[in-house]
Parts: sequence; C-alpha cells; structure tokens
Amino acid sequence: MPETIALLGGTGRSGPGLALRLALAGRRIHIGSRDPEKGRAAAAEIRDTLAGVAGAQPAEVTGHDNREAAELADIAMITVPYEGMGGLLRGVEPALRDKVVISTVVPMLWSRELGPTALDVPEGSAAEQAAELLPASRVVAGFHSLSSATLKRLDHPIDSHVIVTGDDDHAKQIAMEIAELLPGVRGVNGGALRYARHSEGLTVLLLSINSVYKRHTGVIITDLP
Amino acid sequence: MPETIALLGGTGRSGPGLALRLALAGRRIHIGSRDPEKGRAAAAEIRDTLAGVAGAQPAEVTGHDNREAAELADIAMITVPYEGMGGLLRGVEPALRDKVVISTVVPMLWSRELGPTALDVPEGSAAEQAAELLPASRVVAGFHSLSSATLKRLDHPIDSHVIVTGDDDHAKQIAMEIAELLPGVRGVNGGALRYARHSEGLTVLLLSINSVYKRHTGVIITDLP
Repeated sequence: MPETIALLGGTGRSGPGLALRLALAGRRIHIGSRDPEKGRAAAAEIRDTLAGVAGAQPAEVTGHDNREAAELADIAMITVPYEGMGGLLRGVEPALRDKVVISTVVPMLWSRELGPTALDVPEGSAAEQAAELLPASRVVAGFHSLSSATLKRLDHPIDSHVIVTGDDDHAKQIAMEIAELLPGVRGVNGGALRYARHSEGLTVLLLSINSVYKRHTGVIITDLP
Repeated sequence: MPETIALLGGTGRSGPGLALRLALAGRRIHIGSRDPEKGRAAAAEIRDTLAGVAGAQPAEVTGHDNREAAELADIAMITVPYEGMGGLLRGVEPALRDKVVISTVVPMLWSRELGPTALDVPEGSAAEQAAELLPASRVVAGFHSLSSATLKRLDHPIDSHVIVTGDDDHAKQIAMEIAELLPGVRGVNGGALRYARHSEGLTVLLLSINSVYKRHTGVIITDLP
C-alpha cells in the first residue's frame, strides 16, 4: 500500500477533501497546483483543520507545483477539472512513469441554467484520454461518485461506493485500497478502463439528482459478495 | 395510477420478469410481441407462475401483437432490445399518442469475449431516440438498472433504485409509482431526459461489475431525503 499520494490539481473542488480524509488515514499527501504558492496555502489549511481533530496524528501534508508533487509521490490522483487535464498531464508525464495514476476527472460543464452536462471525449472517457497521455503510467479511474462537499466535512459520513475501472489489476487493487481508507467507502471493481465513461457519466447523473433533491448523493452497488 | 400496462417487445429478457412483478402488484398486463402467438405463450407462462403463488389474486396477463398491446394499455414500457426499437416504435406510434411511454432500453451489445459494450446513439440515448420517434407520446426513461434475472425469480428480493429521467414531470411521477409497485424498489427522479444516457450507461457498468463478481447487482442512491 503506497504511503505517499500526490493530488495533482489538488486545490480545486475535490482535492482538499480527499487530502483531508487521506491524511487523516495516515497517508503523506503532496498537494500539487500550477501555482506552488496555492498548493502550499491549501496544504497549510488542511494541516490546520487536522490539528483541530481530536486524536488525529500530526499530518504530513505539503504543497508544491504539480511536477514536484508528482515526483515526490508513490501514486498520483488527477483532481483537476477536465479542461485542465491535458495541459497538466503533458507537463508531469515523465514524473509519473511506472506509477499508479488514478483519474478522478469527470468531463462535464456546469451552467446555472442547464445544470451539469457531460462533454464528449474523443477517447471515450477522461480516464482513457489520461491513459493515452501517460503511456508509461498505470492509469485507472475512480472516486468520481464521492461528493466533494461531503469529503470536506469530517462530521459528514461518506456513504458511497467507489467504482474503479482499469486494465492493470494490481493498480486497480491499490486504488480500491486507497478508496477504503475513507470511512464508509467500499471499493468496487468495475472492470476494464473502457467502462470508465459510465462511471464518469454516473457522476453527471448524481449531480442531476442532487439538483432535484438538494442533496449530496452517492451510490451503493447492491448484491455484491 | 394507470391500471393497464403494455410491455412492448415483452417476450425478451426483461419483459417477463416485469410482467410477473407488476401483475403480482395487481396491474393488468398486455404482453406485446412481433408474433402474437409468442406474446400469448409468454402470458400463459406468467399466469401459470402466478397461479402457484400463495395469496396472489388471479392475474390478468394477456398476449398480443405489439400494436394491439399498445392500443389496449394506458401506459407502455418498451422492453425490446435496442436493435429492434426503431422498427417497433414506427409500427405502434399512432397507438401510443398522448400515452406515457417508459423506455427501459439500454443501447448495448454483448459479446462473450468483450462483455457488454455501449452503443453510440445519435440522439444521445435510446430514450431520446424513442422520444423523437414518438413525438406525440410522453416518453420517460427508467428501469434500466433492474436485473432481469432477479425480476423473474419471485424468491429473490429486488434491492435497487429505479432512476427515472424525463421532461414531463407528471409522466415521470407515474413511472416512479410503477417502479415502486416492485417490492424493494424506490423511484428516484433523475432529472431531464437528456440524462437518460447516463442511466442507460450505468447498466453497462453494472453488467461489467456482474461479470467481475458473478452477481446480479443493482444500485442504491444514498443521501436522498
């Protein structure tokens, strides 16, 4: 189980909550940002939050530019919005060779009028695009269905499965183990990376359901062993 | 709540199980098939099954050609495979005008080697294609995530939500009420019909998960009110 996790584009919507929860589970976190100063500020904020948690061990959460975060970590999670993914990955590709890389990216737009809208991706999914941009990395997809609002609030239980897709079984196993560091989460093997599009699309559907019910929904797969 | 439901293409994978469960809930069912003789045979089989269920009321389940089933029913569910949907709907369009029509269709192929593969639909989803073919009907999408194997086996509890998408709120409400006739099912409002693609795609992902775990999975949306 890798101890050190980089969150690339980790100052956005989902990065800080994931950093908080994974640091609380004892993992060393490197928050990457285009602007290293922003990365450091986000890391300091997370350390402050964790310092206020009774019983939490001193957390090792540090901020960097994306390239440095990628170099320092055993494993990387892509937490940048889809629009920024291509540029980010071209810049960090050498630092991610042979590493497990988890794409959490959902290709979508949000408008106040229309709500969430999935974007067509030529490769089929953001994760498959990431795999093409990182041919020497072990790319899997997952964590799409976790509410960033819930992740950030430690008093809110996470009640969701994390469906992981990928073509490298060992990398998929690692991603499921990382998912299960989050309390209330079960990792579910969703099969090959070509199914990542449906896991990404499910998030768009959950966001639509959130709009209808004004909640932060998640998803549980039933009838698993 | 409409009393009479047509299952168009109802002799396939999901039709018989839905017919069984909805008849058990007291609804009158018309099973439609291209070949009326097949429709009648499927209906007879379901009546036989229901006759063996302790406490079940005499079920009204009859078989027809698709056109006749569509004419007789208050509401129709499209349960034909995607390949047959266009031909079916062109033939029954006049009989479905002003009626609520629920597309349960998942556009996909199955191969022994590759497993399930989603098909691209020019309209975005099978349900949106159905809506274009039935411009005078009230088309919604739902029931994709119910395992046809589980539906058929009355001793197997259904443990899944049914996410219904559509642009007609009243039609969507009716579809959710029909979903909740099935024990263990909750209907969930998934928003507009343009989100149907993600509900259809989720089924492909569930089938991939089924392949991995050798189960008949379903899906529960968490944090609903």
